[in-house]
Amino acid sequence: MHLPSRLAARLRNPGLFNKLMSATEAAALIPLGGNVGMSGFTGAGHPKAVPPALAARLTALHAAGQRDARINVWTGASTAPELDGALAKALGMGMRLPYQSDPTCRQRINAGQMHYTDLHLSHVAPAARSGVLGPLDVAVIEVVGILPDGSLIPSTSVGNNQTWLDMAQQIILEVNLQQNPAMQGMHDIEPPMPAAPNRQPLALRHPHERMGQPFLRCDPAKVVAIVMTDHPDRHTSFAVPDEITSRIAGHLIEFFQHEVAVGRMPAQLLPLQSGVGNIANAVMAGLNQGPFEQMTAYTEVLQDGMLAMLRSGKLAFASATAISLSPQAAAEFNANIDFYRERILLRSQEMSNHPELVRRLGVVAMNAMIEADIYGNVNSSHIMGSGIMNGIGGSGDFARNACLSIFMTPSLAKGGKISCIVPMVSHHDHTEHDVQVIVTEHGLADLRGLAPTQRARLIVQRCAHPRFRDALLDYLSRASDSGSSLHTPHLLDEALSWHSRYLRTGQM
Amino acid sequence: MHLPSRLAARLRNPGLFNKLMSATEAAALIPLGGNVGMSGFTGAGHPKAVPPALAARLTALHAAGQRDARINVWTGASTAPELDGALAKALGMGMRLPYQSDPTCRQRINAGQMHYTDLHLSHVAPAARSGVLGPLDVAVIEVVGILPDGSLIPSTSVGNNQTWLDMAQQIILEVNLQQNPAMQGMHDIEPPMPAAPNRQPLALRHPHERMGQPFLRCDPAKVVAIVMTDHPDRHTSFAVPDEITSRIAGHLIEFFQHEVAVGRMPAQLLPLQSGVGNIANAVMAGLNQGPFEQMTAYTEVLQDGMLAMLRSGKLAFASATAISLSPQAAAEFNANIDFYRERILLRSQEMSNHPELVRRLGVVAMNAMIEADIYGNVNSSHIMGSGIMNGIGGSGDFARNACLSIFMTPSLAKGGKISCIVPMVSHHDHTEHDVQVIVTEHGLADLRGLAPTQRARLIVQRCAHPRFRDALLDYLSRASDSGSSLHTPHLLDEALSWHSRYLRTGQM
Repeated sequence: MHLPSRLAARLRNPGLFNKLMSATEAAALIPLGGNVGMSGFTGAGHPKAVPPALAARLTALHAAGQRDARINVWTGASTAPELDGALAKALGMGMRLPYQSDPTCRQRINAGQMHYTDLHLSHVAPAARSGVLGPLDVAVIEVVGILPDGSLIPSTSVGNNQTWLDMAQQIILEVNLQQNPAMQGMHDIEPPMPAAPNRQPLALRHPHERMGQPFLRCDPAKVVAIVMTDHPDRHTSFAVPDEITSRIAGHLIEFFQHEVAVGRMPAQLLPLQSGVGNIANAVMAGLNQGPFEQMTAYTEVLQDGMLAMLRSGKLAFASATAISLSPQAAAEFNANIDFYRERILLRSQEMSNHPELVRRLGVVAMNAMIEADIYGNVNSSHIMGSGIMNGIGGSGDFARNACLSIFMTPSLAKGGKISCIVPMVSHHDHTEHDVQVIVTEHGLADLRGLAPTQRARLIVQRCAHPRFRDALLDYLSRASDSGSSLHTPHLLDEALSWHSRYLRTGQM
Repeated sequence: MHLPSRLAARLRNPGLFNKLMSATEAAALIPLGGNVGMSGFTGAGHPKAVPPALAARLTALHAAGQRDARINVWTGASTAPELDGALAKALGMGMRLPYQSDPTCRQRINAGQMHYTDLHLSHVAPAARSGVLGPLDVAVIEVVGILPDGSLIPSTSVGNNQTWLDMAQQIILEVNLQQNPAMQGMHDIEPPMPAAPNRQPLALRHPHERMGQPFLRCDPAKVVAIVMTDHPDRHTSFAVPDEITSRIAGHLIEFFQHEVAVGRMPAQLLPLQSGVGNIANAVMAGLNQGPFEQMTAYTEVLQDGMLAMLRSGKLAFASATAISLSPQAAAEFNANIDFYRERILLRSQEMSNHPELVRRLGVVAMNAMIEADIYGNVNSSHIMGSGIMNGIGGSGDFARNACLSIFMTPSLAKGGKISCIVPMVSHHDHTEHDVQVIVTEHGLADLRGLAPTQRARLIVQRCAHPRFRDALLDYLSRASDSGSSLHTPHLLDEALSWHSRYLRTGQM
C-alpha cells in the first residue's frame, strides 16, 4: 500500500498500513458490554471519530430493539461533545470514569441513566492495573503519529494512555492530522510501573526533569484499527478576567508575597498547580502581571493563562498531563511550538498528580470549588448534595499532598441567590484537614494551625459575602449556645437548611 | 559531679551533668504562653514528670490570680493522664495539636475551654518547620539515654521528636530509667528534611530498610534541663476479642484470601497498617491465627496484636513510630528485647505516615471509624457532628495513599441505640473517594470501582445491622423518588435526622 505523503509522515510503521479503516469500521470492532479505555483529558487529545461512530452504532442497535447495547468508558478526564456528549446522548455508556464535564453526560448521570465512578485522577491507573475495574477490552487512543517500531507520538494529552495501551486486549489508534507533529519530544512517558511490593522511588526532583522517554509504548500486534482524523481539540474559550476573579487573583498574589517575605517560599514561589476554568485562568493572568519571576508549574492541565506566562517568561517551565487551550491560544502554541517544546513536558496523569511527587516538589495547589463551609470543608463536585457537577478531578491528589492547598470561589453564585460559604457543605470532597486557604473576592482566610471555631470566624469575616455574614455568625452563635459540643458546633436540624431553602424557594 | 552508676549509664555526656534538676525546677523554665513540643505517641514515650509539674505550677498561678497562665502543646499523638490529663485538668493548654484521646482533654475541648487543631499526623512536622504554627519555645522529650556526643537514644515513640529538638529554642530531656536501654538500635531517625524545592526522593522500598541512624540529633548547648524519671508508659490493656470483633477479623481474612487468589496481593500480603484500639487488636489476633505467613507491617503504632504476630513469626518485620503495649505485653517485650530489636524499627511519624512511602509500599490501611454513611463517607473523629472524640490521627495519611483502604466498626454502638451506618455521616474525615472497603460484623463491602448508588446498596446489604437496613433502604428509595438528582440521592431535610433523633430521644 502506498500512502499519501501527508499520511505516510504520520504512519511510519508499514506493517500497520493494513489496519487503516474508517471510524465506522473501527467502531464495529468494539465488543458490546466491554470496557473501553479512551484517551482524552480536559477536551484535549481525545479520539474524535470512533466515539461518535460508536454512538451511531449503539443508537442503531437500540432502534433495532437491542436496548441494552452499551459500553463502559474509562478516560483520562473530561473529553468533548464527540465523545462524552455523543455516547451519553446515545445512552451508550453503562459506566463512566473518572472526571467528566459534559452537559449531556451530567444529565444522564443525574437522571440515573448511567453510573459514574469519581476517582482521584492519580488513583485511576493503579486501580485499573490491579484489575478491580475489570479487564480492558479495547483502547481508543488519539496520537500524533506512529513510529517505525510501533511506538506512538502522544497528542495534546497523555492521561492514562500508557496504562490503557498496556492493558487493552485490542488497540484502536486515531492519528489526528490536526495535531502538530512538532510536539514530538514534548512528552515524558514513565517506564512500566510495577505493582507493590516492587515499586521504586520516582526520581523526579524538579518539574523539568524526565523520568522516561518521549513515546508511548505500544505492541503493534494488538493494534486492530487505525483511523485517520483531522479534527481540532475542544478549544473552549475562557472568560476575560472580571472584577471578581481579578480580586481573587489579587488576594492570592498578596498572600504569596507575604509567604515569600517571611521565608516560607522562595522568590520564584514553589511549583504551581492550577485547576481548570475561568477563576484559575484569571489567577494565572494575575500572576503574569505580578511580581514573581522564574516560576514553574507542576500541574494537570496547561490552559491559556499558563501558556501566556511561559510566553512572557514569568513561567520558566511547566509540567502537565494535558494542554487545553482556546482557539486563539492553540494557534499561538502551534506557531511557536519550538519555543514551547523546550518549556513543557506532558506526563501520564499518574505522574502529574502523584502524591510522592506533589509532596516532594512542595506544590502550591490552587483549585476552584463549588462551596465551602464555615469550618473549611470543601465541596468540589455536587450541586445541593445529590447531583454531580463534574467531579473531584485531581483536586484531592494535589490538595492533600501540597505544600499549600488553596480553594477559590466567588462568594456568591446564581446571581446572588446562593452563598458559596454555608453552615455545612452539602457534599464533602475535601475535609477541613486538607483545606489550608480559602479565597473569595472579599478576601483570603489563612486557616493553617487554627482550630475549627477559629477557622469559622475567619472564613465568615474574610470570605463570605457581607449579605450572608450575619446569618452565618448567627448560625455559629446559636450552635454554640445550643448545648452541643463546642469543638465544631453545629445545629444538625439546620446545618443543611440553606440548601433545602434554595431547593424550595430558589434562594438561600 | 559523680553520678550513681544507674544514672551514669544513661547520661554519658558529662558536660550535661550540671543540667540535672527536679521536674519542678525544669517546669519553671517553660515560658508562659509559649509553644511547647512534647514527645509522646499513643501513651508511649511521653514525658512523665515535667508535664504534671508544669500543671501544678499553672494551677498555683491561676490560684494566685494569673488566670491566663497557660501554654500551647504540640505532641506526636495521644499521651497519658500525666500529660494531657494533668494539663487539661489545670486548664493549662490554650491550644493542643495533633491527635489526643484523653477524657479530660476531650471534655475541655468540647467545653470550648481550649483549642484543638486536628492535623494529619504526617503533616505536623513539615507544618511546624514551615513556621505556620509559630516558633517552638521548648521541647520536652523523653529519652532512654544521652550519648557522649549529646545525641539521644529514643524511647518507645519517636513521633515528632527530631523536629521538636531541631526547632526548639530550649530543650528539656526526661531520661526514663523504666525504658529498656537495650532498645538502642531499634530506631531509624531520618536525616534532616529540607524544605521544598530541595527535597530528595526517600530511599525506603521495604519496611525493614533504614534511611538514617538510630539516634536523635540534639545540640547539647540548647539543653536547659535533664530530669531523671522512673515511670512506666500508659500501658492500656486491650479487650479480649469478642464475637463481634472476631467476625470483623474473619471477614477481612476471607477478603485478603480472595485478593491473594486473584493475584492482587502476594501470598505474604502487602505491608499492614493497623489503627489503634480493640477492633484493630482483634484483627491482628485473627491474622495471627490466619493463613498468611511472612507478613510485614508499615504502621503508626505497634500494639499487643502485632507484637504477638512478631513472636509467632507470622509477622516478619514491623515499622512504626511507637510501641504501645498492655502491661503484660510490655513485660514480654522487655524480656525478649533482643528478639524484637531485630524485627522492629521505630521512625519519625513523618516517615511512618509519609504519603510517598505509603503509596510506594502499597500499604493495606485498616482503621476503625465512628460511623460510615450509605455512600461510604467516613467519620473518624466527631460525635453527633459537633463534639470531638479523639482525632483523625494517621487514618487519612494511610487511607488516601494506601493500596487498600479499609474502615471497620461494629454495626451498632451504645447498646444498639446507634446505627454506625447512617444516611449521611455527621462529620466527614474520609470522603467516598478514599474509602474502598467497609467492614462490620455482618460483612464486608468492597466498594472499589462502584458508583454511589451501587455503593449504597452494598453497604446497607453487607454492613448495616439488620434492624436498620429497611430504614436505610427506605431513605435511599425516598431520596431517589424525591425528584433530586440520582447520582448521590439525598433528602437534605432528613440526611442528619438520625443524629438529631438520637440527640433528642437517645435512640436513632
